[in-house]
Amino acid sequence: MTFLRSRWVAPPAGVEELDPSGLAPGFRAAGVACGLKDDGGTDVGLLTCDATEVSSALLLTRNASAAAPVRVCRDDTDGGSVRAAVVNSGNANASTGEQGYADALAMRDAAAAAIGAEPRSVAVAETGVIGVPLRVGDVLGGIAAAAGALSEHGATEFTRSIMTTDRSPKACTLRAGGVTVSAQAKGAGMIEPDLATMLCFVQTDAEIADPGAALRAAVARSFERITVDGQMSTNDTVLLQSTGTAATPLPDGLLDAVMLQLALEVVADGEGATRVGRIEVEGAATPDEADRVARAVANSPLVQTALYGHDPNWGRIAQAAGMALAGERLAELGPAQIDAEALGGEEAEAEIAVWLGRGEASAHMYFSDLTHEYIRINAEYTT
Amino acid sequence: MTFLRSRWVAPPAGVEELDPSGLAPGFRAAGVACGLKDDGGTDVGLLTCDATEVSSALLLTRNASAAAPVRVCRDDTDGGSVRAAVVNSGNANASTGEQGYADALAMRDAAAAAIGAEPRSVAVAETGVIGVPLRVGDVLGGIAAAAGALSEHGATEFTRSIMTTDRSPKACTLRAGGVTVSAQAKGAGMIEPDLATMLCFVQTDAEIADPGAALRAAVARSFERITVDGQMSTNDTVLLQSTGTAATPLPDGLLDAVMLQLALEVVADGEGATRVGRIEVEGAATPDEADRVARAVANSPLVQTALYGHDPNWGRIAQAAGMALAGERLAELGPAQIDAEALGGEEAEAEIAVWLGRGEASAHMYFSDLTHEYIRINAEYTT
Repeated sequence: MTFLRSRWVAPPAGVEELDPSGLAPGFRAAGVACGLKDDGGTDVGLLTCDATEVSSALLLTRNASAAAPVRVCRDDTDGGSVRAAVVNSGNANASTGEQGYADALAMRDAAAAAIGAEPRSVAVAETGVIGVPLRVGDVLGGIAAAAGALSEHGATEFTRSIMTTDRSPKACTLRAGGVTVSAQAKGAGMIEPDLATMLCFVQTDAEIADPGAALRAAVARSFERITVDGQMSTNDTVLLQSTGTAATPLPDGLLDAVMLQLALEVVADGEGATRVGRIEVEGAATPDEADRVARAVANSPLVQTALYGHDPNWGRIAQAAGMALAGERLAELGPAQIDAEALGGEEAEAEIAVWLGRGEASAHMYFSDLTHEYIRINAEYTT
Repeated sequence: MTFLRSRWVAPPAGVEELDPSGLAPGFRAAGVACGLKDDGGTDVGLLTCDATEVSSALLLTRNASAAAPVRVCRDDTDGGSVRAAVVNSGNANASTGEQGYADALAMRDAAAAAIGAEPRSVAVAETGVIGVPLRVGDVLGGIAAAAGALSEHGATEFTRSIMTTDRSPKACTLRAGGVTVSAQAKGAGMIEPDLATMLCFVQTDAEIADPGAALRAAVARSFERITVDGQMSTNDTVLLQSTGTAATPLPDGLLDAVMLQLALEVVADGEGATRVGRIEVEGAATPDEADRVARAVANSPLVQTALYGHDPNWGRIAQAAGMALAGERLAELGPAQIDAEALGGEEAEAEIAVWLGRGEASAHMYFSDLTHEYIRINAEYTT
């Protein structure tokens, strides 16, 4: 059980954690191996909703080099009524041209046929190497096998089908206020030999009036508040599906708790990561300014190496904050305005803070440390 | 002799490289040890111009956490007629409050008195640890000693007085078209235990009608085109001084050659660096877009580790370019648009390129690789 592992997750009262292999009522999933991964690991997954009426929201990377599955989701999918998702790991199907787009469409159409759904109600997500043609025949075989293996307890196998360099599957199922939320994610650390990707799938039987607004708000408080190395992937995808069959709205904080838990697991499992930091910026003139300073500190290789080296080096926070506010006149930042003590401690979760004294706005970010293992993973593998 | 060491420096025809310890006519310099550095190394320097009429330009960091000497230069110096500069290494005098500002003023006033100059015609620059009070008494003693040691061959000793983690002094003296340009710099790699700083001093006997415009243009083509880890220092300072006694204008390209040479030495000597990359972005819609893409590629830890690992990984360039153009629709970038071959080669200077196919604008950046030694330097030293 990983839930509540972090001090930073605050679930609603009365929450109950269920076996993460179980999905919210009305959903089934599966993961199988089709041979994309050299080690024979699970690499094709299917996630479906038994109900034909599903309310959904889909968030996609803004990277201008978006992969084929992202383009299919963006241009050829009914994002508001996604019944199913088909995924693979081992090949990102990015920078693969027209053939890549056709392959992503073929995956989608095969999944739709296998479960009897409209093609435009099926989302596609892929992760792995880029610039390599997809062995789509193998994937189509995997989809047929996955359709035959769908189970209401298939969440863990589905999660395995999206893993790349993740050290462990990231899944979480919570129940509170008469509704269930299940979710599965994979990490944003870079992938051997290529790119980062963050994928996240969330299912619930709660009623959600505006899934797009609910998902954007939860992502803004979870996946948009984390950084491993400041890099935006070609394949990032987040999907929220709701059946509404519980005839009850989501309790406050339940979606946030699930998504922040998974986001923090992604940071903790960042490539080579040994510790997670949280920078709190207070006293900024505007929310945008607070956000810029928090991101500058979280993405600073100097702060990230100080976290790795257990070095309570407040000067590096002053420098990063000053860089984010370049051109502004700022009162000098010193130990009275910066709390960097936790960098020097032994805790796996280190809280640091800076007070800018310019106003009332605040923001925070979570980040992983920059380590020898990050260099090894990204430099010592040669394509 | 380091000049022409890089394939990327194109000096004007007929250029002659002189001993880098020699300054342009009319300038003298010195460096001495006053005890700021634990190893007893040279740590206080003085640079002066014999002529009382000097035309100058001063560029300072825009970091909002600017150090005391930067604030003195910004608020209390005649940047257009700087006769002398006083410097120290070992202490950046940053985040040191009112006392730090008073100490920087005291350095300036002592240097002015020692050489008989107006206090407001003396620039101050410091580099080293931050947040530590300056032992200003030691520095004032050093200034007196440096004033007694001034020499027209003192450039190398002066350069030693600004070195921190630099592996070698960076100085260059060139002659062409009847004028001489001498310059000294220190590196932009991070400093144990604290911050990066880039300092550069340039002297010439050429006539320069608008030193501010000349310096901004040369910096835009040299120090603003390099990155080690994307961090802006609290202390960056560049000073150009011209006596005009040669009664001849600067030959085209001479100032650029000197400054690009030193900028490239700074990149090559970045913390832990083993190789230097040059990314050329072509076919951008606007110059700003070209610049954003070049900076995103140069600052990407994935591209920097690929350079270290000799990995011709074009996918990482596609990802970084796509991130810089987030939200735009971009034709897919693949091997036809990206030349990453040199990453995989053995050359110390690797040229890579990306063609965006969106317009006619181009830009380039120089960057160092991200290595185990960078992590060691920045993580394994504890303050």
